[in-house]
Amino acid sequence: MNNHLVIMAGGVGSRFWPMSTPECPKQFIDVMGCGRTFIQLTLDRFKGIVPNENVWVVTSESYKDIVREQLPEIPVDHILLEPCRRNTAPCIAYVSWRIRKECPDANLVITPSDHMVVNITEFQRIISQALEFTSGNNAIVTLGMKPTRPETGYGYIERENSSQPTEFYRVAQFREKPNLETAKEYIQHPEFYWNSGIFVWNVQTIVSELSQHAADVAKVFDTLMPYLGTADEQAKVNELFPSCPSISIDYAVMEKAKDIYVCPADFGWSDVGTWGSLITLSEKDSDGNAAIGPRIELHECSNCIVHTSEERRVVLQGLDGYIVAEKDGTLLVCKLSEEQRIKEFSAQ
Amino acid sequence: MNNHLVIMAGGVGSRFWPMSTPECPKQFIDVMGCGRTFIQLTLDRFKGIVPNENVWVVTSESYKDIVREQLPEIPVDHILLEPCRRNTAPCIAYVSWRIRKECPDANLVITPSDHMVVNITEFQRIISQALEFTSGNNAIVTLGMKPTRPETGYGYIERENSSQPTEFYRVAQFREKPNLETAKEYIQHPEFYWNSGIFVWNVQTIVSELSQHAADVAKVFDTLMPYLGTADEQAKVNELFPSCPSISIDYAVMEKAKDIYVCPADFGWSDVGTWGSLITLSEKDSDGNAAIGPRIELHECSNCIVHTSEERRVVLQGLDGYIVAEKDGTLLVCKLSEEQRIKEFSAQ
Repeated sequence: MNNHLVIMAGGVGSRFWPMSTPECPKQFIDVMGCGRTFIQLTLDRFKGIVPNENVWVVTSESYKDIVREQLPEIPVDHILLEPCRRNTAPCIAYVSWRIRKECPDANLVITPSDHMVVNITEFQRIISQALEFTSGNNAIVTLGMKPTRPETGYGYIERENSSQPTEFYRVAQFREKPNLETAKEYIQHPEFYWNSGIFVWNVQTIVSELSQHAADVAKVFDTLMPYLGTADEQAKVNELFPSCPSISIDYAVMEKAKDIYVCPADFGWSDVGTWGSLITLSEKDSDGNAAIGPRIELHECSNCIVHTSEERRVVLQGLDGYIVAEKDGTLLVCKLSEEQRIKEFSAQ
Repeated sequence: MNNHLVIMAGGVGSRFWPMSTPECPKQFIDVMGCGRTFIQLTLDRFKGIVPNENVWVVTSESYKDIVREQLPEIPVDHILLEPCRRNTAPCIAYVSWRIRKECPDANLVITPSDHMVVNITEFQRIISQALEFTSGNNAIVTLGMKPTRPETGYGYIERENSSQPTEFYRVAQFREKPNLETAKEYIQHPEFYWNSGIFVWNVQTIVSELSQHAADVAKVFDTLMPYLGTADEQAKVNELFPSCPSISIDYAVMEKAKDIYVCPADFGWSDVGTWGSLITLSEKDSDGNAAIGPRIELHECSNCIVHTSEERRVVLQGLDGYIVAEKDGTLLVCKLSEEQRIKEFSAQ
């Protein structure tokens, strides 16, 4: 099995404060109240496709222990630690150079650690198909989600026109997060997909693409090459990783690569980027409330999202359209319509 | 000094759940966020009038340790424990028989433990005046508060008409909690006062009145008399106290006694019986919010009462007219207008 899974888990999830905190961000939380955290659910959905010994996590030093605790089934030395945040291109470069050294034939799936997938069977079908495609092909594959609404919180991928349906389309263009008007325009066209941030490629491809399009990043890992997989790795990474520019993989590679495809997918996906999206994904009562936590009692409440991990009992009366979140001695009650201000509240 | 103070502290404060719980009801809580609990504030306001060694607390067995901890300055054997709740008449009878045995000349003030007084100087003037009156007089004195609004949550005392103003008026009638229409009628007349539940009398008077008008209660304490103040007191009280009928002092004595007076008072008093009354008494911001607790941040909130003793940080946004209370792992958010339902919530 050359299939490898890379889980990117360095995010700080500040939009979900106080449920998500810098000490324990969203990917390490049982957001859905299902008994598994987002990163655990992420690993779970690759069961049967990637063996545990081929799973890699890139995260920050401060989350090392949480990852070990939450994913005990993966090798400890596959938890790679970034000494600082440099966006996704250096993150992916690090793990790719490292994997290539151990397994030059590796075929990779790159996934965020804090997204939701509803239909796991369809997800596995799509991933398997994409892995098959990239195993014999120097292609970059992105998973494009069929848009269901004019979402302004996602980037879009536009595919080339095609006379007949296929499983992989050539990408015409990557599109930044649009405004509402543009988003409404996009979803009129079957060529537009949401960019899920899930990528599939073989390790030679991504190393080659990074070397070609992001030479300043590639150079750092070429220098690090002799130390990767050795006892000196972390010290050398701590020394050199910070010299990488902060740049996203989309900007560094996707928008420049030639052999790039989008694989249309429809497995019920969300980046769970807002409380609003969480309420959409959650099981709701007949008044539209999603309550996640022990013993939450709602009286005349509607359209509320309640997430309380540590309260033993919560009684809410007469709230419509509110977020109620409590964790570690911090309580937030905020209108859902004002959730973009939570970052600002948490920073104070 | 024959002045004695009796603090009745057996209440369960269920209307203030979850701030107030059966384990630690309202009188033992720093409700105002001033650093002193209600029972401590009650004792404080008698400084200089009653020496600590003449202070008595009647409470239930389960609150003994809290009282000892919160009022370390009063004698431990002055904390009398009711084995069960039998309303105020048996409570007052117990402490009166007990005090009479030690100090037959005692002159008593009876006070609830969970009320608020704003003007302590005026309070002390009124109490001193009442104690002077009852020290040489077999009168029953009630403190009548000048009503400031048509309150339906209080009982009223109607005094007899008097041609000239005086400090003590004869009581014409006790009136039950009125409906709003009746309350509006009452406050038109200068003869009506709120019944504060604060009483002043000498111990011979109350024992004699109880013996006359509440023989079934008096009989129990006549039987207990040989054991009061001995090592057997608690065991015998536990045995016989439950045989008392459950009856209020108003009903047992006030409404039947002849030599009964009301002393008009105006020292800013409240029984703090509702969250609404607490918000009235508390310091408020310019939007009418009263926030009691560490680090409470309000954004676009108005007319809210927030009481959080254990949260380290609370951020509230977009709430108008709500109660937010958190204690011991229990959170309540409830419209102030629905606060009468809190008892029901807490019972579930």
